[in-house]
Amino acid sequence: METHYINWMVLREYCQKLLETQGMPEDEALITADSLVEADLCGVESHGVSRMTIYLKRLEEGVVNPVCEIKVEREYPGSALINACNSMGMVAGIRIMQKCIDKAKESGSCFIAVNHSNHFGMAFYYVKMATQQNMVGITMTNAPPNIAPWGSYRPYMGTNPVAIGVPTNEEPIILDMAPSVVAMGKVILAAKLGNSIPEGWALTADGRPTTDASEGMKGTVLPIGGPKGYGIALFVDILCGILSGAQFGPYLGNMWNDFTNPQNLGHVFCCIDISKFLPLEIFKEKVGQIKRDIKALPKNPGVDIIFMPGEIEWTRAMERREKGVPLSDTVYKELKQLGEKYRVGFTLCKEEK
Amino acid sequence: METHYINWMVLREYCQKLLETQGMPEDEALITADSLVEADLCGVESHGVSRMTIYLKRLEEGVVNPVCEIKVEREYPGSALINACNSMGMVAGIRIMQKCIDKAKESGSCFIAVNHSNHFGMAFYYVKMATQQNMVGITMTNAPPNIAPWGSYRPYMGTNPVAIGVPTNEEPIILDMAPSVVAMGKVILAAKLGNSIPEGWALTADGRPTTDASEGMKGTVLPIGGPKGYGIALFVDILCGILSGAQFGPYLGNMWNDFTNPQNLGHVFCCIDISKFLPLEIFKEKVGQIKRDIKALPKNPGVDIIFMPGEIEWTRAMERREKGVPLSDTVYKELKQLGEKYRVGFTLCKEEK
Repeated sequence: METHYINWMVLREYCQKLLETQGMPEDEALITADSLVEADLCGVESHGVSRMTIYLKRLEEGVVNPVCEIKVEREYPGSALINACNSMGMVAGIRIMQKCIDKAKESGSCFIAVNHSNHFGMAFYYVKMATQQNMVGITMTNAPPNIAPWGSYRPYMGTNPVAIGVPTNEEPIILDMAPSVVAMGKVILAAKLGNSIPEGWALTADGRPTTDASEGMKGTVLPIGGPKGYGIALFVDILCGILSGAQFGPYLGNMWNDFTNPQNLGHVFCCIDISKFLPLEIFKEKVGQIKRDIKALPKNPGVDIIFMPGEIEWTRAMERREKGVPLSDTVYKELKQLGEKYRVGFTLCKEEK
Repeated sequence: METHYINWMVLREYCQKLLETQGMPEDEALITADSLVEADLCGVESHGVSRMTIYLKRLEEGVVNPVCEIKVEREYPGSALINACNSMGMVAGIRIMQKCIDKAKESGSCFIAVNHSNHFGMAFYYVKMATQQNMVGITMTNAPPNIAPWGSYRPYMGTNPVAIGVPTNEEPIILDMAPSVVAMGKVILAAKLGNSIPEGWALTADGRPTTDASEGMKGTVLPIGGPKGYGIALFVDILCGILSGAQFGPYLGNMWNDFTNPQNLGHVFCCIDISKFLPLEIFKEKVGQIKRDIKALPKNPGVDIIFMPGEIEWTRAMERREKGVPLSDTVYKELKQLGEKYRVGFTLCKEEK
């Protein structure tokens, strides 16, 4: 299938303009578009511009507020409870992460729980922002059910991601992980290609382990480390969905097929101000030492590079900033249709290779 | 092999008296003994009274301070940096967790990093303490190398545990997990019994996947979720070992064979005051709802009960408080010998069944 290579800034501007047609202010549309394009740059296409159609539809249907409002419901020196007022998750997200950074600079650390939010894109994005301001950055979000508690095959918790990052003298080290062994998308793809899947990826719809992708696709993907991944998904939901006063588990609104009720997702943002513990330069130097040590370790057969968490995403983003963001023909055409529908001049024509 | 069932309070008092012979004050010896016996009650024997021999030896050799001192090096409303002054990890641990709870009550949340500490036992113990004071409790510790970065077979990070817990109207929900698929102890046991091990547990000493337990035993256990578990182990080390100013990875002192240098382990304690976000009763009721929901889900073939994180440990501890703590003959005899060596009257004779 054809791949279209699009300059990332051109792509971002086009998405921004589309979002503006639905009443988003210029700067907020830019933030949202930037988060989506950043995901595509990093190779996390599931959280990239392929989501424009659903985001625009939700704005159009009025189930998401186009103008971001955030309401601080409770605040203490090291914590806050914030109502995202059903705003776009990305815009609320970066405003709240900035508040978290500012508060951590005063208090040493800050923990913020957020209710009444929407899908906030790639968790990586907020953590990167915190590391750029010399924080340990942490974020989590809940999501509609996709993972079953250990011992069941009925999804209850989402593939609730946890992301954490620290600055170094080079690019930050950032871990952004879902607590599932694999994304359901990979099982679906294997089924489409007629391939089998490895043991330990999925259960069938009646709870039996399977290597048959088409059976696994109708069932559920497994959590990492069995009960451990189940525990991680559960605790993210307790923090993001209960402590915050948002919804949780099966009670969360579905982004894809419910255009009446807000999702009421919850997030957590947390920052720790490194300089309140030790001089920043020493911290960065020691993290650099870990990186050098790890890079110099002996490698398993067939392994060329030992990567730091987030390194694959950074490297890919650098390449794609130069060479263009690869869009599948499907996504490319979707974006073109959105331009027609919302009367935005299509600017993705000039393909760069 | 014979099993000896010992009343948990008798066992705790005996351990306490042994620790007092090495200069530990009565209350500090009690805390240490309580943590060890609690681990045995929960079925986490690796962190239980089987460690008395090494703890006593380290105290006797003077490589651990018998009298706990903690020095607050830096303090802000939502954070602190604390030097555990080479005290027993358990005693420093509960003092610091209490400080963390007290600070979170003021600030909403608190994050404390600790340097110059020693092995602090079962992470579960501190989290349970925080939940009893209506906190979300979190703790982490680093440990000497046992896990390899993903792509290598050379251990660099420890099986650094992360524990998190919340209160409910019944027992708390507590996740206490190492980022490895399995403890190396299980691989060693399989090798001893001549059994094979499942795929995905271990690598050989030259980095090849293996199902041969005796090969795996000479190699390394794998992290959960591959690069994800590697990332978790790495970030725990960055927080506990670098942010705190303690040691990290391969530079940590070894508890088992180095009696000259302090371990200089690092920990993190973190609390979030639930009542600063929503009324405690609502929080507990909603977590209770999650529990009821999960318990009522359909079960996989062969599964009788879907457990909440920590439930197996609580149930076991309740049983063992009644029936006695089962000690293997080896550990029983070790404890008896310690009584002779340190001149403490042996009180574990009366066996209860």
